[in-house]
Amino acid sequence: MEHAITSIGLIAACCTTISFVPQALKVIKSKNTEGISLYMYILFVSGVSMWLCYGILINDAPVIIANAITLVFASTILYYKLKYR
Amino acid sequence: MEHAITSIGLIAACCTTISFVPQALKVIKSKNTEGISLYMYILFVSGVSMWLCYGILINDAPVIIANAITLVFASTILYYKLKYR
Repeated sequence: MEHAITSIGLIAACCTTISFVPQALKVIKSKNTEGISLYMYILFVSGVSMWLCYGILINDAPVIIANAITLVFASTILYYKLKYR
Repeated sequence: MEHAITSIGLIAACCTTISFVPQALKVIKSKNTEGISLYMYILFVSGVSMWLCYGILINDAPVIIANAITLVFASTILYYKLKYR
């Protein structure tokens, strides 16, 4: 049972982490960032950066890895939003 | 020191949770979802739903609360994306 619960957490983490990949690719390809909220990505990138600090401080590998990957893609989206607004 | 670390985690959780509010409001107001990735929100809503299940299974209030709130706003964005694509 415990393994099943851990698996749900890991699949959840994979989904939320990789979800930013198609959005980053779409923004890079289309250069259309009109529908994307600047405030969302400012808040989100700030939050994920703090999650990464938190992961380092509590020395938790899953938190560090998931947030480091998310930070790369969310920052890319924010960069394009600032560039093409 | 431990309180400071917990505070960073809580601020991080608040930022990533409320970040979807401005995006949801933008989509509701503008009805422009062209720049938003459908695959991102399918993956993200699936992931957050699983995070919520995970939170319920491990009986962790912060995981349950943060993901329940995020699910409301991310589902709203997905609903508008499907409606106005």
